[in-house]
Amino acid sequence: MTTTGIDWSSTETPTTAEGWVARAAEVSALLAVDAAARDRAGKTPYEEVKLLKESGLVTLLGPAEHGGGGQEWPTAYRVVREVAKADGSIGQLLGYHYLWFWAARLVGTPEQVAAVEEQATRDRAFFGGAVNPRDDDVVITDEGDTLVYRGRKSFSTGSKVSDLTVLEGVLEGTDKHIFAIVPSDTPGLVFHDDWDNIGQRLTESGGVTIDGVRVDWAGAAGYRDKQFTPRVYNTLNVPTIQLVFVNFYLGIALGALEIARTYTRERSRSWLHGGYERAVDEPYVIDIYGDLTAKLWAVEALADKVAEEALVIHRDPDAVTERLRGEHEVRVAAVKARATEVALEVTAKVFEVTGARATASSVGLDRFWRNVRTHTLHDPVAYKRREVGVFVLRDELPEPTWYS
Amino acid sequence: MTTTGIDWSSTETPTTAEGWVARAAEVSALLAVDAAARDRAGKTPYEEVKLLKESGLVTLLGPAEHGGGGQEWPTAYRVVREVAKADGSIGQLLGYHYLWFWAARLVGTPEQVAAVEEQATRDRAFFGGAVNPRDDDVVITDEGDTLVYRGRKSFSTGSKVSDLTVLEGVLEGTDKHIFAIVPSDTPGLVFHDDWDNIGQRLTESGGVTIDGVRVDWAGAAGYRDKQFTPRVYNTLNVPTIQLVFVNFYLGIALGALEIARTYTRERSRSWLHGGYERAVDEPYVIDIYGDLTAKLWAVEALADKVAEEALVIHRDPDAVTERLRGEHEVRVAAVKARATEVALEVTAKVFEVTGARATASSVGLDRFWRNVRTHTLHDPVAYKRREVGVFVLRDELPEPTWYS
Amino acid sequence: MTTTGIDWSSTETPTTAEGWVARAAEVSALLAVDAAARDRAGKTPYEEVKLLKESGLVTLLGPAEHGGGGQEWPTAYRVVREVAKADGSIGQLLGYHYLWFWAARLVGTPEQVAAVEEQATRDRAFFGGAVNPRDDDVVITDEGDTLVYRGRKSFSTGSKVSDLTVLEGVLEGTDKHIFAIVPSDTPGLVFHDDWDNIGQRLTESGGVTIDGVRVDWAGAAGYRDKQFTPRVYNTLNVPTIQLVFVNFYLGIALGALEIARTYTRERSRSWLHGGYERAVDEPYVIDIYGDLTAKLWAVEALADKVAEEALVIHRDPDAVTERLRGEHEVRVAAVKARATEVALEVTAKVFEVTGARATASSVGLDRFWRNVRTHTLHDPVAYKRREVGVFVLRDELPEPTWYS
Amino acid sequence: MTTTGIDWSSTETPTTAEGWVARAAEVSALLAVDAAARDRAGKTPYEEVKLLKESGLVTLLGPAEHGGGGQEWPTAYRVVREVAKADGSIGQLLGYHYLWFWAARLVGTPEQVAAVEEQATRDRAFFGGAVNPRDDDVVITDEGDTLVYRGRKSFSTGSKVSDLTVLEGVLEGTDKHIFAIVPSDTPGLVFHDDWDNIGQRLTESGGVTIDGVRVDWAGAAGYRDKQFTPRVYNTLNVPTIQLVFVNFYLGIALGALEIARTYTRERSRSWLHGGYERAVDEPYVIDIYGDLTAKLWAVEALADKVAEEALVIHRDPDAVTERLRGEHEVRVAAVKARATEVALEVTAKVFEVTGARATASSVGLDRFWRNVRTHTLHDPVAYKRREVGVFVLRDELPEPTWYS
Repeated sequence: MTTTGIDWSSTETPTTAEGWVARAAEVSALLAVDAAARDRAGKTPYEEVKLLKESGLVTLLGPAEHGGGGQEWPTAYRVVREVAKADGSIGQLLGYHYLWFWAARLVGTPEQVAAVEEQATRDRAFFGGAVNPRDDDVVITDEGDTLVYRGRKSFSTGSKVSDLTVLEGVLEGTDKHIFAIVPSDTPGLVFHDDWDNIGQRLTESGGVTIDGVRVDWAGAAGYRDKQFTPRVYNTLNVPTIQLVFVNFYLGIALGALEIARTYTRERSRSWLHGGYERAVDEPYVIDIYGDLTAKLWAVEALADKVAEEALVIHRDPDAVTERLRGEHEVRVAAVKARATEVALEVTAKVFEVTGARATASSVGLDRFWRNVRTHTLHDPVAYKRREVGVFVLRDELPEPTWYS
Repeated sequence: MTTTGIDWSSTETPTTAEGWVARAAEVSALLAVDAAARDRAGKTPYEEVKLLKESGLVTLLGPAEHGGGGQEWPTAYRVVREVAKADGSIGQLLGYHYLWFWAARLVGTPEQVAAVEEQATRDRAFFGGAVNPRDDDVVITDEGDTLVYRGRKSFSTGSKVSDLTVLEGVLEGTDKHIFAIVPSDTPGLVFHDDWDNIGQRLTESGGVTIDGVRVDWAGAAGYRDKQFTPRVYNTLNVPTIQLVFVNFYLGIALGALEIARTYTRERSRSWLHGGYERAVDEPYVIDIYGDLTAKLWAVEALADKVAEEALVIHRDPDAVTERLRGEHEVRVAAVKARATEVALEVTAKVFEVTGARATASSVGLDRFWRNVRTHTLHDPVAYKRREVGVFVLRDELPEPTWYS
Repeated sequence: MTTTGIDWSSTETPTTAEGWVARAAEVSALLAVDAAARDRAGKTPYEEVKLLKESGLVTLLGPAEHGGGGQEWPTAYRVVREVAKADGSIGQLLGYHYLWFWAARLVGTPEQVAAVEEQATRDRAFFGGAVNPRDDDVVITDEGDTLVYRGRKSFSTGSKVSDLTVLEGVLEGTDKHIFAIVPSDTPGLVFHDDWDNIGQRLTESGGVTIDGVRVDWAGAAGYRDKQFTPRVYNTLNVPTIQLVFVNFYLGIALGALEIARTYTRERSRSWLHGGYERAVDEPYVIDIYGDLTAKLWAVEALADKVAEEALVIHRDPDAVTERLRGEHEVRVAAVKARATEVALEVTAKVFEVTGARATASSVGLDRFWRNVRTHTLHDPVAYKRREVGVFVLRDELPEPTWYS
Repeated sequence: MTTTGIDWSSTETPTTAEGWVARAAEVSALLAVDAAARDRAGKTPYEEVKLLKESGLVTLLGPAEHGGGGQEWPTAYRVVREVAKADGSIGQLLGYHYLWFWAARLVGTPEQVAAVEEQATRDRAFFGGAVNPRDDDVVITDEGDTLVYRGRKSFSTGSKVSDLTVLEGVLEGTDKHIFAIVPSDTPGLVFHDDWDNIGQRLTESGGVTIDGVRVDWAGAAGYRDKQFTPRVYNTLNVPTIQLVFVNFYLGIALGALEIARTYTRERSRSWLHGGYERAVDEPYVIDIYGDLTAKLWAVEALADKVAEEALVIHRDPDAVTERLRGEHEVRVAAVKARATEVALEVTAKVFEVTGARATASSVGLDRFWRNVRTHTLHDPVAYKRREVGVFVLRDELPEPTWYS
């Protein structure tokens, strides 16, 4: 991929949701050119992150007055989906970036939020995160004005391609989780470069050692005078990031179907004893395309609808009730379940409509399935169906947690 | 069911979409009371049609200036869905009524349309239809000023519970189809009362003999001086009615799930060797509710979205291009496919979460599956997937036809 | 159905398994003639049970020296499957009869077993059962030489069409279950005739009141001097009856597919816009028949294999180890799960390959689904998959119980 | 993998089917040790083929009097399944070897068959094949006593790891296909080493150029005096090789489930908010294992049954009628369809029961899906269902062809 194909600085910054989605589509087209080859090579996506910055996508959620796109989550989700069509890894990186960029609002004080958003927008900073509350293996020592983080995290998506890293740890002797944003090249932050998984290979999701990273108390998100002053809606992390997942799953599946379609049209051969000259006339091929498309459209419609439903929450988080939050999470759980199931089905079935030669490694058609298969295990989809079922059946809302 | 439960005349007519849907929910609650018993008895729904009239639902699409609801199709679809939750047959009757009420716009001259809509709204007339272009067995003789219809139709939904019947036939010696609206009690219109099928049992969909029904040429829809003056959008019949189908399938499935939920909560026993005291705690029960709910929500979202997409077509039918129409039909085909598949799955699976005793005839839980199973055969769902697949793969639009 | 079609007394009694299956096929053909009509009418199957007797099928498992067929369970299962093709209810009645006939071996003393088998074979007695250990609502009073049963059972398959009824109850003040066989016309045995369910309508599975039914201690199965002298294999009840279930599910599904095939060939119309003249040439129709057939064949193969595997158990029950028994039950659970899932799918999908007119009540094509749907709820199929999963994953065997 | 683990020469050659399957299991255990690593490395399986020879598996079908196993196809299929559990590629290589070894019987004269089987058995020769009748791009020139093959084949499974290669081409100016067996190191046979596909990576299935390979007319299979003297059963190629496919698909799926089970037991973590301490206690995990196991068992049972059914054909091929052959192919098509569907499902779902960390490349759990996904595209599974459907519906037998 070359980022030089377009001189973004000479193009106008989009001002509407549709404009941003179109911009994302341009980026996606560039990423598509060598996505299969980059995936095979496991190429660290420095260039690709540069593209996300130059095209302006990274500041989509940033305040317009500081040069950001001023968009809301529904647009961000659609942008993630669009990018993921070409490259699931870059879609994930961008989606996680949006989450970390926005997460300041969840826990930060108003001043912190304003500062982070201005700075990150002006710098077009790219966020990564070393946050995985499943492991509480980062301990924070309070040294007066300064907090010192020490420990390790198994996963740190973005890591070395990011500018800023969101750290999380537990204050020694307490059960307080403290979040802070530090430059990714902070000494003491050692990325292990050990992400070698079957899918989402370019997300740089390896482990990280945090070896005495120092953070001013002023940078402790949400803390004033060493006291946490939480906002009511600091539990929106899970539904918001889960919708990120949903949208890059959808993007990957839509991308797979699009690549397959081109292949079927241009390269697939009809079956030699079937009586059809072209693969596109085979009834079973048509049926599968129809079926998969219908399923994807339904999940897309629900993803868009749930994103819209969340606007009321995002626009006035202080008014969010437990019930409203809980019902939203249930809706998210539902679309997560469907997106998972349908994306797995689509990315596995595209082979049946492209044929044996499409299994050549050079075609790279398997990366879509590997990508979906890998990330959909982030948390068990069975528990998403469970959340929905428990709500429907027992009218119980999911417990807010920090992790899916 | 008693229609006397509510004195509708003393309630205010709704003025918003939400208001109409709430009204439909009230009607639905009344229908639910004895839906299972009426289904078993095969009771001709005179009372239920009366309820649809008194509650104002029948004039939902009628011009507000004549006392109608002045609503558009998206509301009508949601109302159909709501009513079908309690009673699939009545949902279908209402949906078909909307179609016939509205169909005047497809083929009528502007004067005819205005006249039909005013009259039917003022009279709260209920429409049925003897239109089934698969059979061309009604022949029309031109007797100068008058057309005389003779023949039979295998299916005539609504029939004897309707006030008006839409007739269709072929003018003798030509291939011209001529539609006309006649009072359902016109002499010469003989309903056979032979609808005895496993589902949608109360739709009065039996055959009809048309034995010399006379219609003025002035009543021949779309004809001026015996010449047909078609409008561009006279091919919207299929997508519009197919969305009616989609919505009563969804309603039936949602109704089944709702009834099942109550049953599971109140009557189901947990498995004797399973270790759970309540059925609502059984993991498999929860999983099925979660799964079915997620699937239904996705189809609902797509149904609503496609209905919205159609507004541009319905609001300015003269501007509808072949492409726009075709792409809409493809979207409708997709949601039809999904609604069919999911509604069949839901209505069959509710038994697994209610248990053996829920198969008692008195519970009537099987009527949902029988209803969906019966009507989803109206036209083969495989051809809906095919429409989508052909479009995706070959960029070909479906041929407009008069029948699904 | 008329049993006079064949003078069975003049035909030779089969002597091989194949011969018995062929005999069952003859019976099945007779049952098929009016199966749909009898189902609709809810006709008590006196005539049909008579047919099972006259054709000799009832004594299939009886000792050859007393005029029985001398066959083993694999043959009995195939016979049940064959009969169920035409009539699921009669298949169930016959399968339950075999179970009760054979159950003497599970709990009886050798003398009791010999006596029961000789007598029942000579009399061509038909068994029913009022045994449902889920409810312990039959109490037995010990009156010295006599036991007196009092209480009620919710389900008593066979009831008034049976000659003998297997009773079960709990000895007052103990937790001893005592089984006994009594004439079905014993005073005090009152069948409620209240089986009105959506499927398996002719099984006469209604409740029964046991109002002081007296049984000699000598008739208490497995008791000598009022002490239970159990045999090691008295826990085979569940796998053996579950394979009965499997086989009538399979029979019902195979019957549905066979009826559908004839309908598709002779009556279904191809789709009017599809381009095929005959329904049998429609790709989607062919695909569904191929798919359903392949699935049924796989389940049939497993059912036959598991029945064969059980022979070692049935032939030398005293040598049965807990492990052998447990592994067999796991295999049975697996085929039960598959038979359930596939039979539900087949019986629901046959409508898609026959078309809208096949939903006429007169066709009766829905009875297959209603039959499978009803009986497969006997015990939750989720627990069958669970048994298999727990075994595979934790190497734990299912606990023997008296009830599925 | 090391073949030196077992000194096969000191072990006794099995003499029963069970003995051979046990032998295959020993081989499978050796292959399993480094299967994931070899797959990743794309290691040419010289050592592994040596293992197949030393263990005697290659001569399983060879005449006992020449040192072969004297076994029939049902044993060969089970051996292939066993080997494929550990390594799908080696399972395929062995299965294809059996096919080519045995194929002499299909087209050879009795003398040729005897000579080939004796020689190949004594030499423990390993067969590959450059036969792909879909491409007719190998032309044979008749130079009097000698045939000269020239052309190329896209796929030649086994290629450079084989001792003998089955060639196929068309005699110039005719439509006669002539098969011959030549040493794989024959000058003029150039293997391209270009098999780089996502699955079955070690099968050496790349292309081959045939550049003037000379074969005596005496070696032309089935030819006497340049005339083809076919046997009736020369059309058994397709069902026989398709059952090879079925069995290595089953083996791969069983292997995936076995590896997953060990992983779940030893390494998977239960979900952090689920309330279970061990992954093996999670209801959804248990359910999936139960479901997948039940499905696999059903397909296995059908595979074994169909293999047994074929014995009558293999034992007396001269008595094979068109009907018998055709019905067998339909049965094979059915089990092929099921094996494909179930193997795809199992190999994709194992991730859901092992969890996110099982996507590490080092675990290699994706190779099972990649293997099944790749080979199941050999010919469209839709056409297998079609074969079954056409037979069931129209009573038409599949046309014998040379290629699936």
